[in-house]
Amino acid sequence: MGTAPGPRARRGAAPAGVAAGPRPHPGADEVVIAVERLNLDAASYRQLREQHGSGAAVRAAVLAIVAERGKMQNPVTGSGGMLLGTVTAVGPDSPLGLAVGDRVATLVSLTLTPLRIDDGLADWDGASEQVPCRGTAVLFGRSIAAKLPDDLPDALALAVLDVCGAPALTDRVVRDYRAPSVAVLGGGGKSGSLSLAAARRAGARRLVALVPTEAEAAAVRRAGLADEVVIADARDPLAVATAVGDPVDVTVVCVDVPGCEHGAVLATADGGTVVFFSMATSFPAAALGAEGLAADVRMLIGNGYVPGHAEFAMDLLRAAPGVRALFEARAH
Amino acid sequence: MGTAPGPRARRGAAPAGVAAGPRPHPGADEVVIAVERLNLDAASYRQLREQHGSGAAVRAAVLAIVAERGKMQNPVTGSGGMLLGTVTAVGPDSPLGLAVGDRVATLVSLTLTPLRIDDGLADWDGASEQVPCRGTAVLFGRSIAAKLPDDLPDALALAVLDVCGAPALTDRVVRDYRAPSVAVLGGGGKSGSLSLAAARRAGARRLVALVPTEAEAAAVRRAGLADEVVIADARDPLAVATAVGDPVDVTVVCVDVPGCEHGAVLATADGGTVVFFSMATSFPAAALGAEGLAADVRMLIGNGYVPGHAEFAMDLLRAAPGVRALFEARAH
Repeated sequence: MGTAPGPRARRGAAPAGVAAGPRPHPGADEVVIAVERLNLDAASYRQLREQHGSGAAVRAAVLAIVAERGKMQNPVTGSGGMLLGTVTAVGPDSPLGLAVGDRVATLVSLTLTPLRIDDGLADWDGASEQVPCRGTAVLFGRSIAAKLPDDLPDALALAVLDVCGAPALTDRVVRDYRAPSVAVLGGGGKSGSLSLAAARRAGARRLVALVPTEAEAAAVRRAGLADEVVIADARDPLAVATAVGDPVDVTVVCVDVPGCEHGAVLATADGGTVVFFSMATSFPAAALGAEGLAADVRMLIGNGYVPGHAEFAMDLLRAAPGVRALFEARAH
Repeated sequence: MGTAPGPRARRGAAPAGVAAGPRPHPGADEVVIAVERLNLDAASYRQLREQHGSGAAVRAAVLAIVAERGKMQNPVTGSGGMLLGTVTAVGPDSPLGLAVGDRVATLVSLTLTPLRIDDGLADWDGASEQVPCRGTAVLFGRSIAAKLPDDLPDALALAVLDVCGAPALTDRVVRDYRAPSVAVLGGGGKSGSLSLAAARRAGARRLVALVPTEAEAAAVRRAGLADEVVIADARDPLAVATAVGDPVDVTVVCVDVPGCEHGAVLATADGGTVVFFSMATSFPAAALGAEGLAADVRMLIGNGYVPGHAEFAMDLLRAAPGVRALFEARAH
């Protein structure tokens, strides 16, 4: 796992080089990647399709963006995506722990990854956010890349890597308590099912999965990931509180729709913690909601980076067949 | 201090009664307030002025809103404000610890406080967000109200109450570490100066105040609230990291402008904590920024409610003449 951060003092250095485009030889702390595929961020791809229409026009737009910016950053959405490739060169001072020949996926946005495209994206019809691509990318000392495991299909490994911060932080938070009760809102999704497995391993005494539909509840029950599987609309505070029942010590929010803040707060006992992983979380709604409810809860912004998070999530998936089954079911 | 929350099971009950308007006699867990003044939220007042123009028209608009909604909630901004008044009746089961005759300020938004106006706002010219008002309001079991202290002017006490969550949570977080280094971004403001005083009292070893201007730096130096006072634009990540120097264990963000997330993360050591109090904080910017920087930092959403926060902040102000001087200087 190439997740070790560089020395603290260099943290500021990475952004300065971002726009420079990849160099043929790595700098002292850099790693050069022969790119195999880009996965465009879903929001970015959707915007490009809406603006440009045909697949050929979308392809031309991506080429133009990378030619101009030296990286794939959608100028409208601001977002990027990730890439897969093989390490071709490693600078002598690289802290990432990678070796030539390693197949890797980047865990830092493409918006921070210098990229050159060498094949004109000839193998991509523009009809999917999965972009076959021959090209070159550069990772910095503070980049994060995960070695793709030999024992898991690429698509499965990538799906796990996409959400690997959630189970790692859930593990940490659950271990702050002694045999706590834990609720995961959106327990049937990717980050949700991994968070349930992480909470169980970290010692959760009572584990509640909240999901929106009976079909999803049945899937989570089959996967055996929770003690209780309850159905409620996570945007309805009273419905969430009622469904969860006795307030829990830790609530993990993995529902990617706006408006889940108050339900999460209501479901959490005083002295408890809410971890918000959903990017749809509203900072003011959480802050003012907890204040308005006089709720003495700690609220964490789900930091997607925890040292060792990728390996931790892969291990969970290997150890919990129920999680893998949910992931594979979602892929179909 | 009437800050004790009601039993957990009743948390969901308060909103249901919100729109009903005040009743003449308190319910079992209610408190009736003879209103003396409303302080409209700044954003709400600005919107009303822009929409309605003259003071008389603004007054009519506020009367119409309260008549229609049973509470002062600006339909455009969604925000309310707070009120001052005197307790006239206390239900037998009220958990707020208030007695008839207490002068109080509400710490929960007017948007959650049933209100009836009895004087047509005759004493208000509509030219300020401070609204003299005779009327009746009702607090619920889960409302939060603070008794106004006898030894501080109302205006000063209200200014402290407005930000009292910040020093209380800063105290908690700083005590999670052993003699930590602490930086407060926006250390010259109300929540910032109180947070500096709280961090000092909680055992901060090295205390850095970051402010935007030389004038503010001079004021914070005179107040003696920090070991180091540094000047930087909190929206410039590298400038913040450079100004703070050695990364700190705890960073407290009290700068009420957007774009301070990355600087706060960069200024914080691995294993450290960032507490975001600014309502201008962007959840995705914080989450994705920390991930992109591979920063192993804990990020807290500043919950404005901590049990005992109002009394805690008043005590800090009394004990730290420098804080009081800053507050009084800002009022002029």
